Amino acid sequence: MSEKTEKRRADLRARILDAAEAVVIVEGMSAVKARDLATKAGCALGAIYNVFDDMTQVVLEVNSRTYKRLGAAVAEAMAQVRDAPPVDQLVALGHAYLHFADSNTNAWRTLFDIPMSAETGVPEWYIDETKRLLHNISGPLSQVRPDLTPENLSILCRALFSSVHGIVILGLEKRITAVPEQDLAPMIEVIIRNYVGSQAKI
Amino acid sequence: MSEKTEKRRADLRARILDAAEAVVIVEGMSAVKARDLATKAGCALGAIYNVFDDMTQVVLEVNSRTYKRLGAAVAEAMAQVRDAPPVDQLVALGHAYLHFADSNTNAWRTLFDIPMSAETGVPEWYIDETKRLLHNISGPLSQVRPDLTPENLSILCRALFSSVHGIVILGLEKRITAVPEQDLAPMIEVIIRNYVGSQAKI
Repeated sequence: MSEKTEKRRADLRARILDAAEAVVIVEGMSAVKARDLATKAGCALGAIYNVFDDMTQVVLEVNSRTYKRLGAAVAEAMAQVRDAPPVDQLVALGHAYLHFADSNTNAWRTLFDIPMSAETGVPEWYIDETKRLLHNISGPLSQVRPDLTPENLSILCRALFSSVHGIVILGLEKRITAVPEQDLAPMIEVIIRNYVGSQAKI
Repeated sequence: MSEKTEKRRADLRARILDAAEAVVIVEGMSAVKARDLATKAGCALGAIYNVFDDMTQVVLEVNSRTYKRLGAAVAEAMAQVRDAPPVDQLVALGHAYLHFADSNTNAWRTLFDIPMSAETGVPEWYIDETKRLLHNISGPLSQVRPDLTPENLSILCRALFSSVHGIVILGLEKRITAVPEQDLAPMIEVIIRNYVGSQAKI
């Protein structure tokens, strides 16, 4: 492929992704339609499928951008509590996650709503983004619990992340638990402090 | 309305719900289509809208059945550990929730996937089903933590349920945390034991 053709393809990809990201942020994943994206990116419908396999791949790439924004938000929160006790760092992380989900609800939901079947599995770079996120937790957690083997540290990180995620997702959706939004931050703090300050060991 | 007409309406509702429940269990909520339900229930398409407001109401009623099945599964698990220490009862509850979600994945997911906007709010009976479920947790939890005010007990119940839910949902979907399925039950046990056995108090 010539350099010029390659640049044209890259430009087209970026325009389509910009259009898709805007749709995901404002209306959510279900509003992402190939025909609309073509109109917004100023290309023929078929051109989308020259640069992307399918709409799932488009949404996955939007999610990659969302992960980067989430990562930046988390890094900023961590920078502000760098000198605080590790358990306070964990609470700040949990609150940053809640805040990001609350102010980017559609994009954040889309991280979990993409259709990934057991057959196709999870793409490698998705796992890598995860590891980067979980690494933020394992740092302070390993200071509170230096007794853990790397394996148990990894399990506790995932359990802690999943717990905070459960509070955020049920809270923001006002589903089963019907928790008022102002209770979410204290719930996250309580569960993290109880969890890492616990006597019961893995 | 005559008794006969009323019975006919009730029969039709039940047939439509049976058809919808079967679809939800096998294929999930997105596969519930009015036209298919009419065919399966042996009625005209318009007849569905004589007995239900819309497809959302049909799915909500299917969810009501799912809640009852979940409630029965939880009650059965509780009956088996009635004489165990309260913390073991809580672990059994968490495991029963995981087991139900794992073996009824589509129906369980549908509990959380129904479109409920902030405007329409959550129906009253949905909140009641929730309270019944959370009541199973508050019993043993109040034995472990008799110091809690009713308000704090309620917050801790919801936080504990949300945590277990987060582990189950991320685990079964193999999204961000990519936790192998056999690790889910131990993670639930660890988080519950750490949580309720904790020294850090609300």
